[in-house]
Amino acid sequence: MFCVVMAGGSGTRFWPRSRENKAKQYLKIFGKESLILSTIKRFEKIVGWDNIYIVSKSKQVEILKRHSGKVPESNMIFEPVGKNTAPCIGLAAIQLIKTDPNAVMIVTPSDHLVKNTRQFKKSMMAAAQLAEEENALVTIGIRPTRPSTGYGYIQINGDQRTIHGVHAFRVKTFAEKPNFETAQRFVESGDFFWNSGIFIFKASVILQAIEEHLPELHESLMQIRDAIQTDQYDAVLDRVYHQIRSVSIDYGVMELAKNVFMIRGDFTWNDLGSWDQVYKLSHQDSNANAVLGQAVLVDTKNSYISADRGVVAVIGMEDVVVVRDGDAVLVCPRKRSEQVKQIVERLKREKQNDYL
Amino acid sequence: MFCVVMAGGSGTRFWPRSRENKAKQYLKIFGKESLILSTIKRFEKIVGWDNIYIVSKSKQVEILKRHSGKVPESNMIFEPVGKNTAPCIGLAAIQLIKTDPNAVMIVTPSDHLVKNTRQFKKSMMAAAQLAEEENALVTIGIRPTRPSTGYGYIQINGDQRTIHGVHAFRVKTFAEKPNFETAQRFVESGDFFWNSGIFIFKASVILQAIEEHLPELHESLMQIRDAIQTDQYDAVLDRVYHQIRSVSIDYGVMELAKNVFMIRGDFTWNDLGSWDQVYKLSHQDSNANAVLGQAVLVDTKNSYISADRGVVAVIGMEDVVVVRDGDAVLVCPRKRSEQVKQIVERLKREKQNDYL
Repeated sequence: MFCVVMAGGSGTRFWPRSRENKAKQYLKIFGKESLILSTIKRFEKIVGWDNIYIVSKSKQVEILKRHSGKVPESNMIFEPVGKNTAPCIGLAAIQLIKTDPNAVMIVTPSDHLVKNTRQFKKSMMAAAQLAEEENALVTIGIRPTRPSTGYGYIQINGDQRTIHGVHAFRVKTFAEKPNFETAQRFVESGDFFWNSGIFIFKASVILQAIEEHLPELHESLMQIRDAIQTDQYDAVLDRVYHQIRSVSIDYGVMELAKNVFMIRGDFTWNDLGSWDQVYKLSHQDSNANAVLGQAVLVDTKNSYISADRGVVAVIGMEDVVVVRDGDAVLVCPRKRSEQVKQIVERLKREKQNDYL
Repeated sequence: MFCVVMAGGSGTRFWPRSRENKAKQYLKIFGKESLILSTIKRFEKIVGWDNIYIVSKSKQVEILKRHSGKVPESNMIFEPVGKNTAPCIGLAAIQLIKTDPNAVMIVTPSDHLVKNTRQFKKSMMAAAQLAEEENALVTIGIRPTRPSTGYGYIQINGDQRTIHGVHAFRVKTFAEKPNFETAQRFVESGDFFWNSGIFIFKASVILQAIEEHLPELHESLMQIRDAIQTDQYDAVLDRVYHQIRSVSIDYGVMELAKNVFMIRGDFTWNDLGSWDQVYKLSHQDSNANAVLGQAVLVDTKNSYISADRGVVAVIGMEDVVVVRDGDAVLVCPRKRSEQVKQIVERLKREKQNDYL
């Protein structure tokens, strides 16, 4: 049983804390350890250090090594460029299958928050059993607590089974990020779950599914596989990867495949999509302010304040985000913190590369 | 005719731009030159470089030299500690009277804004003539444009005269900073003016007035005068100054003296008391934002944004002040920018000296 941590993302939602050379997964978003290291440690308890693989981008070699604990360097796979999740997972699968033809792989984003790790482990073990016994493609769904338009949804059919106390369902459909009204319907229906982006399957099974639904990608992966452990590997990987089409595993495979199950993840999960979400998950003081670093607050409530160094002073504000990091400062209402992307886009357009 | 620039203040209203070792007068508040250098240049056109004296604090020797243009170092007078304006003016007067027994001195704060320098010069010349011919104590009053509670007021009696087109009045009373209702009455009455803090008198006349109304201070000043140009000067100054009582020239002398006149200053004047006032006097873009330094603004209006370095990004805010300077960031509604003092007080209480 292996874990594949996908860590290639860059992430602009946490600017100015996240930058081009410091992606979201490397942030100590709650002040203690980076999200990726938390993720790795969570899986270390399930598969052990040696069975954790990390797929990242060549650019991130150095920073990844500082945030990967005791994961062996030989378990780090670097994509020349990012091509979304299907190629990433395929690349990991061809590596794993060489190590162990019966490898079961848990594929996970590197930058999400999970609380209640014991329950999380139970879900993973049940998913792995299902993947192995049924040659199934398994996904982890989270019971929605609000009509979020920021997540993809998974619809189950009623047909439920239980594996060591964990609930599993056959998947009916995957739905892309909905608009608000659709999201409301989803939540009310009771048979839609948030797509956590965690997948569990045998390496051989996902490669078969890729062969069936994304034959071109499969062809490319086979070329790369043949070059593994030759001195041609880097050159082949580079050439082939640049030709591969970007496609997500959800859209390219899961939505089309037959034997798809969902495990209901009965643990606290959050994809940490904005400063507002971080605020809500952070420790708050008696004025409902979440403060990281040094701040002087006068008459200020319900706000997220963060300073990597120096001091941030706020007078008479409510429901705001103030983040000072390096050479940049962000100020915005909490509710608009998703619009941080607009700042990053503007900086890109204006070629203000120092701030990216 | 001499000018005495009072530059001993520290000023907490412009934190984080102003700090203990960078008082308000040294700030390039509108981005070009420091307030003190603007003040000095304005007076250079009236009295010339050699007749400008500056009174400051020993601590500020180095920074003052960088902001004093061609004022001779021998014209810089340093107080061991600040004791408000009466001792400061007295100290300048005993120096000037040694240079010229008939010296007329214009005493001015170093950190105010004046526009229309030609009209300003006319006012100063008229004031000097009045001070010389009448042995008068002359003050400059500004016609109030709103019921400000941040200024002291001067009440005139109707008895008006004109000196080269400049209006002069006998002063009836001085009023300390009023509450809002009183300020409204003042403004409606038409015979109250803002006290600009600029005074004009003969050195001999102000020393006589000090002798009459603040005899202890006069005694102290005479001790210092006797030590001028001796090697005892520094020691005497230091010892005597620490014993002197803090008192303003307004309260200690002007309110009690007889021969007091007010010149109506028909020029644009602002004491720059808060970030909000600076905002109002700054160039504003099409969204009514005043920006100094580099900013990325999305849906942001009527705001003052300043960054000494790096970038400040603001989304969806109105009527706010965001100032990044050195190791500190300030965020507050424009209307509450006077409360910046509370931040400074809090930092002092918490002994956060790095940020002061």
